Order: sequence, then C-alpha cells, then structure tokens
Amino acid sequence: MTTHVRIVGAGLIGTSLGIALTGKGFRVSLEDPSPTAVRLARDLRAGEVADGHTNAPDVVVVAAPPDVAAEVVVTALDRWPGAVVSDVASVKESVLRAVLASGADANRYVGSHPMAGRERSGAAAARADLFEGRAWVVVPHESSTPAAVSCLREIALAVGSLVLVMPAHEHDEAVAAVSHVPQLAASIVAACLRDLPESAVGLAGPGLRDVTRIAASDPRLWTQILAGNASAVRDVMRLVRDQVQAVIGALDALVDADGVGALGTLSGVLEAGNLGHARIPGKHGAAPTAYEVVSVVVPDEPGALARLLGDVGNAGINLEDLHLEHGLGQAVGVAEISVVPASVEPLRSELARLGWRVHD
Amino acid sequence: MTTHVRIVGAGLIGTSLGIALTGKGFRVSLEDPSPTAVRLARDLRAGEVADGHTNAPDVVVVAAPPDVAAEVVVTALDRWPGAVVSDVASVKESVLRAVLASGADANRYVGSHPMAGRERSGAAAARADLFEGRAWVVVPHESSTPAAVSCLREIALAVGSLVLVMPAHEHDEAVAAVSHVPQLAASIVAACLRDLPESAVGLAGPGLRDVTRIAASDPRLWTQILAGNASAVRDVMRLVRDQVQAVIGALDALVDADGVGALGTLSGVLEAGNLGHARIPGKHGAAPTAYEVVSVVVPDEPGALARLLGDVGNAGINLEDLHLEHGLGQAVGVAEISVVPASVEPLRSELARLGWRVHD
Repeated sequence: MTTHVRIVGAGLIGTSLGIALTGKGFRVSLEDPSPTAVRLARDLRAGEVADGHTNAPDVVVVAAPPDVAAEVVVTALDRWPGAVVSDVASVKESVLRAVLASGADANRYVGSHPMAGRERSGAAAARADLFEGRAWVVVPHESSTPAAVSCLREIALAVGSLVLVMPAHEHDEAVAAVSHVPQLAASIVAACLRDLPESAVGLAGPGLRDVTRIAASDPRLWTQILAGNASAVRDVMRLVRDQVQAVIGALDALVDADGVGALGTLSGVLEAGNLGHARIPGKHGAAPTAYEVVSVVVPDEPGALARLLGDVGNAGINLEDLHLEHGLGQAVGVAEISVVPASVEPLRSELARLGWRVHD
Repeated sequence: MTTHVRIVGAGLIGTSLGIALTGKGFRVSLEDPSPTAVRLARDLRAGEVADGHTNAPDVVVVAAPPDVAAEVVVTALDRWPGAVVSDVASVKESVLRAVLASGADANRYVGSHPMAGRERSGAAAARADLFEGRAWVVVPHESSTPAAVSCLREIALAVGSLVLVMPAHEHDEAVAAVSHVPQLAASIVAACLRDLPESAVGLAGPGLRDVTRIAASDPRLWTQILAGNASAVRDVMRLVRDQVQAVIGALDALVDADGVGALGTLSGVLEAGNLGHARIPGKHGAAPTAYEVVSVVVPDEPGALARLLGDVGNAGINLEDLHLEHGLGQAVGVAEISVVPASVEPLRSELARLGWRVHD
C-alpha cells in the first residue's frame, strides 16, 4: 500500500521533501498557512493540496519554522491518532521537551534533522535532490515505538539520505559545536570589520574570506536556531570565552608586564586548533585523509580553468577538492588542486610537461 | 647602475624575493645563519652567497623571523652606513620602535610587509611569483627619507606587487582585524572540536570546514606574529570578547530567565556580521561585487569537472570564483560557480541544454 505523507509547511525543506517523495512513489498531501506557498509547492509537483476531504495520513512531517515546530507536532499527534509524526527542525531537545510536556501521544513522535539547506528559503528554492547524499539524523526518544523509527528511516532513505540515529541532547550538542558556534564566530569576526578604514579592509586575504563566508547568513533564521539550542550553544560558547580570555590575558602580559607564560598560552591555543581541525572528516564522510595540494597558475580568461581540469582528468587523476584563489589585484588566479599523495608527482610532471606553471 | 640588494634570511620570503629580483636584473647577495639554507637559495637562483669580500649593498632586506627582525635591521644599519634597510615582518610597530630606540641611523629604515605567504616555509618552498599581484605594504616612519621610501617602492613594483603606503600603527591595526584575529577565531572554534564524540564531528559540513581551514596553520610562526602585534590584536580581541559575552548573556537569559531582549541581542550580532562581511573587497581588490552562484551537480569521476568548466568557457562566460562542495557520504559533488548577475540566466540555460543538472 502506498504510504501517505502529510507535509505541514511548504517552505524550502517541506517542498523539496514533497518533490523527492512524490518522485519515489509516495502519496504526499501538503498544507501551509500561506495558500500561495502551498499552491506553488503543488505546481512544483510536491504533492496535492490537502483540504477537509483529504483522508488521514500515515506519516506527518512538520516542516514549519523552528519556533513553532513543537506546537505543530502536538496538533498533528492529536489530529491524526494513527499517524507517525516527525519534524525537521535543526534543534531537537527543545521540540522534544515541549511535545512530551503537552500530554500528546508522544510514542508516535520521532524527531529528525536532515542536514540539508541552502542560502535561499521558500518553496521556489526547493529542489528534488536537496537530501541526496546528506546526513539525515533520526532522533528517537525513550518511548518512540520501533515502528515510528523505522518509518522515518524509510523516508530518509527514500530521498537518498544517509541515516544517523542519535538522542536529542547528543544531536544538539553536536550541532552546537560543528554548526551553531562556527556561525557565531564567523559573524563576530566579520562584525569587527564594520568600522575599519577602507585601506584596512583592502588588506583582506583568502584566510579572512574563508573564516567569514557564512557571516552572510540570514539573521532571522539563525536567531531562531540559536535560541532553540540555547543551552548547548552556551556550553560551547563558554569554552570559546575561556580561550578568548586566556588569549587576552597572554596579550595583557606581553603589553603591560613581563610576558612570562604568554607565548605558551598563545601557542597552546594554536596547537589545540591544529588538533581540533585534524578531527574534521574528509570528503564522503570518510576519515580525514591527508590530501596534498598542487598549486597551478590559471590565467583569468574564459576556459583556462576548464583546460587545466581537462588536463587533470586526461591524466587519469581524480581531483578530491578544488580551491580557487584570487588575491588583491591579481590578474591571474591560483587553482589549488587536492589529490591523494600518490598522485602528486605524476600530476605535477604531467602539468609541467603541458606548459602549466606549477608551484612547488 | 645595477642595484645591489642584500637579503638577510634565506627562508620562504627571502629566497622568493631573491629569485624574483635576480630575474628582474637586480644584483642579489644572500646571507643566513644556516649555511645549508643560503646555498640552497643560491642553487634556486636567488643570488650569490655573500662573504667577507662582497661589496656593500645599496639596499638590505631583512627576511628574518619576526622576533629577531629588529635586531638584524639595527645591525644592518650600522654595518652598511650608505644602505637603505627594510624588513618584511608581518608586524611593523614593534620592529620600528626597537629600531628607533637603538640609536641607529633610522632615516635609512623603511618597514615593509609583502602580503604573501604559503602554508609551507623554508627556501625549498620559494617561488619566483610569490609576490605577483599581492599587496606590498610600505611602512615609512616620520624620519624615513623620501629616497628610502621610493627605493622600497621600486623593489615591490619590480616583483609585481601592488604598493600600499601606511604608517606602522595603521598597518598593525589593519592586520590585527583582517588576519590575526581571524586566525585566533579559527583556532578557537577548531579547538572546541577536540573532545567531541566521533558521531558529532561526523555532522561537520562545508560551513565548519571554511571557518576552520586556517586552524591548520603553524603554531610557532603564529605565536611570534601574535606576540609581535600584541597591543593591536588585544584591542580587536576585546571587541570579540564583548560580543561573546553578549551572546552568552542572551543565552543565559533564554535558559535561566524569561529571555527578554535575548533575541534582539542574537539578531544584532548576526546582523553586524552581515554588515562586516559586506565590506570585504572582491576579486582583484575591487569593491565587493554581488556575484551570483549557479550550482551544478558534478559526478565524482575524473574529467567531469573539467567537462563542466569547458562548457562554461565555451559559453563565453567568465567564472569569477568556484567552490566545490562534498557533503557527508556524497557520491557526487556540487560545483558552485560564481558569475556576474547578467551571466546567470545564459549560463543556466546553456548548461541545462547540455544535460547538466543545474540547481535553482
């Protein structure tokens, strides 16, 4: 029998999920407080528009903004007493607590968090492949039934995600450290640029660009996410504060006193950063691989980078990552090509043979 | 008459400078406490090895580690009473102060800071084009002679750099905000990952990777840089601390109290980050341009990215930047191609026509 999924919320995530599930043969019905959004989602083939005559769904996925997710989950549990209910909010503990406190039949509730998103929001930004190859965290609680958990797992696998199962507090602690605090750090570093003289921001290099790229994110959405995960974010921000204080203390000692111990403190923070950085997994979720970088000068003209990468491909070498660097006033770029160590020398000699300027 | 440049210090910067100046017809003599390093630099065509018979240089460039730069500058001023002397340390006020305090003939001293470097150090990593298209900050002080300043300017232009002139304190304040504090922030965020469970770091995405990329930098070099610019770095770190405290205060209010004002504080930090981020200049040192991103699915196989970029080039469209994204467990990548807004629609339709999966 075809599974009937009700999606509540026709934004980026809800509409993308509707399109993906419809494509996999699920029956999808849609609702949203905005009649325009729900009709747009239908036109994008995300499913049918639900009305008073639509029969009860087997599964409900709440794709509402994080600050109303719990309330919509509780309503859904009461409204459809036979359905499994989930939500896709990027924080899980606060939603779970509110659901448990409501007195609703929480056995049928399982949280989830598809690790997918875009800089843009709304149904118009939806895409069928949004979840493909992404992690989808399934977040059961103590009384979630096994049937409810496997139901969510089935949906996540159907849209091409990799399923990870973890409890709510573990999920929230993880995303605080790997997502929410990095967002705050990027915003805070970028905020320090606001009042700099023009000549000073002119010295910006690729390091600053990388650190602050996500500082361009949407403040409205991120305020909700941070508030929804306040406790776990606070724990990590306290670690950040302690390190910031230690650095300032060391700088104080260097500026105002004899600086004893200061260099050790600074070096300790930088070394801890080396160790933490080394824990970030590489491509495809595999253990971090020590890729090596081959840097090649690329003239700033249409087709030059393509020609370079064509030569890389023709050499039978798989490019693991690519970073294009332009400095202040550069008329050329430098392509940093990451490959497995064994490919470094073959690639360097082949590119040099073909006339590329390969850096050491 | 050929200008004779003595380079003191045959590391990455000194050797690269020697190679570049030799290539432009300068006479370069080299010295370094390490006989191996100086001979390696000579073999790389960075110049002749200086000995007791080498005649006096016209210009001395001190390319020693930051913590000994001032001392080497003072020695050079005393040793060659006719020469202009400069250094390339990435902090300028502390070097200048020590030179002025030494009683040496500081009129012939002009600081400089070529904004170029690599993750690797040493003569072996040198390259002739290290300074090409990079900013070279020339840092005169009150009694620097105009002749000394134009001499440094000539060297910077000869190696292909763009010359910016600013006083030492202005330089140090600028690099504190655009380079030194971003380094600390990246290290501190990465340090928070050290003790996470494996499942938590498994949720890392491209945002974390960008924020922490430079956390892999060399702690020894960076300890010297931070200590050398302690006062200016401290000023910016205090701004960081105030914002970290404000965020923690808001999270406290949300967790422990009624949260009044908390959302406004969080949103304020995120909005300030938007504003600061918008001030970072774009490619080629130009004013920031709102490039738009076209996202295209790239199969993970040799040559696929090249084929894509070949199609972009054939469409006559100039790629302004390129970012390759791989999520956890993805078998395909997404290439994010930045182009000027007017090229978005032509590029999208051309790529779709050729069978590429282009995201909205």
